Amino acid sequence: MNPTLIRNGVIVTMNKRREILRGDLRISDGKIAALAPHLPAEKQDTVVDARGGFVIPGLVQAHTHLCQTLFRGWADDLELLDWLERRIWPMENAHDAESMRVSARIGLMEMQLLGTTSILDMGSVDFHDSVFSEAEKSGMRYWGGNCLMDLKAASGPLFRPTKDTLEYSESLIQRWHGKVDRIQYAVSPRFAISCTEEILRASVALRKKHKLIFHTHASENRGEIRIVKKRTGLDNIKYLNKLGCLGPSSVIAHGIHLSRSEVTDIVKTRTGITHCPSSNLKLASGIARIAEYRKRKVKLAFGADGAPCNNMMDPFMEMRLAALLQKPIFGPTAMPAMEAFEIATLGGARVLNAEDRIGSLEQGKCADVVIVRRDHPSSATVDDPYSALVYSVSGRDVSHVWIAGRGIVSEGRHQIYEQESVIEDARSQMHKLKSRIKVKSAHRR
Amino acid sequence: MNPTLIRNGVIVTMNKRREILRGDLRISDGKIAALAPHLPAEKQDTVVDARGGFVIPGLVQAHTHLCQTLFRGWADDLELLDWLERRIWPMENAHDAESMRVSARIGLMEMQLLGTTSILDMGSVDFHDSVFSEAEKSGMRYWGGNCLMDLKAASGPLFRPTKDTLEYSESLIQRWHGKVDRIQYAVSPRFAISCTEEILRASVALRKKHKLIFHTHASENRGEIRIVKKRTGLDNIKYLNKLGCLGPSSVIAHGIHLSRSEVTDIVKTRTGITHCPSSNLKLASGIARIAEYRKRKVKLAFGADGAPCNNMMDPFMEMRLAALLQKPIFGPTAMPAMEAFEIATLGGARVLNAEDRIGSLEQGKCADVVIVRRDHPSSATVDDPYSALVYSVSGRDVSHVWIAGRGIVSEGRHQIYEQESVIEDARSQMHKLKSRIKVKSAHRR
Repeated sequence: MNPTLIRNGVIVTMNKRREILRGDLRISDGKIAALAPHLPAEKQDTVVDARGGFVIPGLVQAHTHLCQTLFRGWADDLELLDWLERRIWPMENAHDAESMRVSARIGLMEMQLLGTTSILDMGSVDFHDSVFSEAEKSGMRYWGGNCLMDLKAASGPLFRPTKDTLEYSESLIQRWHGKVDRIQYAVSPRFAISCTEEILRASVALRKKHKLIFHTHASENRGEIRIVKKRTGLDNIKYLNKLGCLGPSSVIAHGIHLSRSEVTDIVKTRTGITHCPSSNLKLASGIARIAEYRKRKVKLAFGADGAPCNNMMDPFMEMRLAALLQKPIFGPTAMPAMEAFEIATLGGARVLNAEDRIGSLEQGKCADVVIVRRDHPSSATVDDPYSALVYSVSGRDVSHVWIAGRGIVSEGRHQIYEQESVIEDARSQMHKLKSRIKVKSAHRR
Repeated sequence: MNPTLIRNGVIVTMNKRREILRGDLRISDGKIAALAPHLPAEKQDTVVDARGGFVIPGLVQAHTHLCQTLFRGWADDLELLDWLERRIWPMENAHDAESMRVSARIGLMEMQLLGTTSILDMGSVDFHDSVFSEAEKSGMRYWGGNCLMDLKAASGPLFRPTKDTLEYSESLIQRWHGKVDRIQYAVSPRFAISCTEEILRASVALRKKHKLIFHTHASENRGEIRIVKKRTGLDNIKYLNKLGCLGPSSVIAHGIHLSRSEVTDIVKTRTGITHCPSSNLKLASGIARIAEYRKRKVKLAFGADGAPCNNMMDPFMEMRLAALLQKPIFGPTAMPAMEAFEIATLGGARVLNAEDRIGSLEQGKCADVVIVRRDHPSSATVDDPYSALVYSVSGRDVSHVWIAGRGIVSEGRHQIYEQESVIEDARSQMHKLKSRIKVKSAHRR
């Protein structure tokens, strides 16, 4: 890869001093080589003129489900447990290796076009090689893995025996974990409801053995909490803590309904929480009190969750919504624009224990860089970059994306995928998958 | 104007049977002349290929403040009454005729680019000729007027004596009301706090005399309600009702904190409510229970409110947020996608008493038509048009807009304004306006 020189940007560094720098940024060997008001072009440089746009750290989405992208628009207006049992699980179960690949591909393409450079992704129970190989191909910085569902009574068609699913996990780790630096396995028990104690303990052991990120859902829904309490006698987070599931490499998606003491456990163990505001509204789950969590020093990130519960994988949408939703609860100064932007960048990096490499634009860090155009009348006259980026832009304003220095999006077009044919393949696989569900439903009658 | 033939669209008609029609739509003489699976091109036709995109009724925003567009990003993270007194009123007061014109121009351009074809707009106390003449030029279907603030103790720098401001209103009506069919004056007392009883009664008389829309704010904020109660002994809506301010031509912006009996008054008088979800979150005002209002048959519309309390004038954003926000309160089936889309189109038309002309795509109605592209991976695979339009698209996906048959936006570019120079003028006027505020503040010391 040639070095790249980005010129004439408003560079939102997110460095310790939160400097805004008007000028240039050089990418070389996958890293940020230099930032300065003016950098002279060198012979090998590919020069990109940012034309006064915002140059920002790539956004991190620390909770996604690439396996569900094809299901978008099929599962609206349902509550979490119905949504899972009546729609999502049968659909995940109808995947084959090819539909899984295509589901991941269109989701990766969408998120990259919208300025996402890192994701923490939870798969389904099978076909996760498809997801890994597509993540590798797309250039995404990817943490993820197959999900674990070994409690037969509460896993519907996705039940897989404990031993089989752990063996599958180990084999994925062998094939994919660290295959390239930006591809990392994450051990992913789906949620306490669908997991035996045995597999939760085994997941903790795997996390330790391979130095993995541990990724699960918890306390998204009051019904879910009641089920866990009934079975274990404990609140969700208390139960996970008892089994050793919390910790500085653990990431809990949602965490909406938490007692004060559960938040204390999260803080003490330095566990991360990924807030997914669109999804939490759409599934009628509630509004997480993240302004309070933040005051208590919880490590926070944002995520779009899966396409059928959002239905847009735009990190700018989540950032805006997260900032707005706290204000009626805690007052208008709760979650100002800069804090929301920090959670979407450095916050995501922190929950993934990757703050030394990503989350800010500083010399020596990985070159995960996004240019956001400022030519739309919604944002063009806003002087404060944080206000513009959080309240006035859309992911549709992203013009360029680099991940590890590789050009992924240029002038709003994906550079690795042919967009139209990815969409065409997704439509075709979606219809095939639909017909497989119909056949299965017919057999069940 | 030549007739226009739009081909190959997914036409979301919003007619009584809510038909979705795959095919063509012809615009002629400012009206919708025909819709059919296939219409043969005639010699004079300008043909536009919708390429499978959604062809929808133009969206109505029934609460905006074009006079505030230049203030975007200067007034973040404040609560309503502080936001008004410390920021918005001094800024409105610093306008001159030219800054007012440019503020309206960039707001109109932004909203049209994002698919808005009709607005109900509240001005500031002066310079409303600038807004009307720009509305006329832009092609927007416009209802609006100068706002009335004649209670000295509660109007800050915007106080204008009752007689003067009513004379000014009458003169604007003479110059602008119905000058062209799509330009209508709306009588606009700002809110009960800043108005004498005399001017509220005079507004009601003006509404009757000229058959106007009556437009005010009410029950946005608990502090506002307390002030009105202290002065009048009544809840906001009760007070307005006592003075005759409610009625089938009246539109109340916000209506967040309403008693059951106040909602009854709204229903009985067939008063409209405009819900502004982004603004209500951003100013920490609260969440209006619109799913409940809708069950009780309140006439509902959406609006983005002003640019400094949103900060994006995107009707798709408001529609999505409105649908999502009701779900944690009333459950996941509250406000399904089709209902939200109906409020954004027919609902807006109804509160403006214009349902016979706009709000749906039917033969003989005004040709206010929008094409939304479906080539973004966020929406391309979604089969249900309402789900796609409410949950998965952005105003940035709008490619074409016609108002009264006139082409306003084509291939995402504004056809009447030169976008870059509108933005340049807005920046320049914004900096001049800032310096005028500084001079005034210095004088006050």
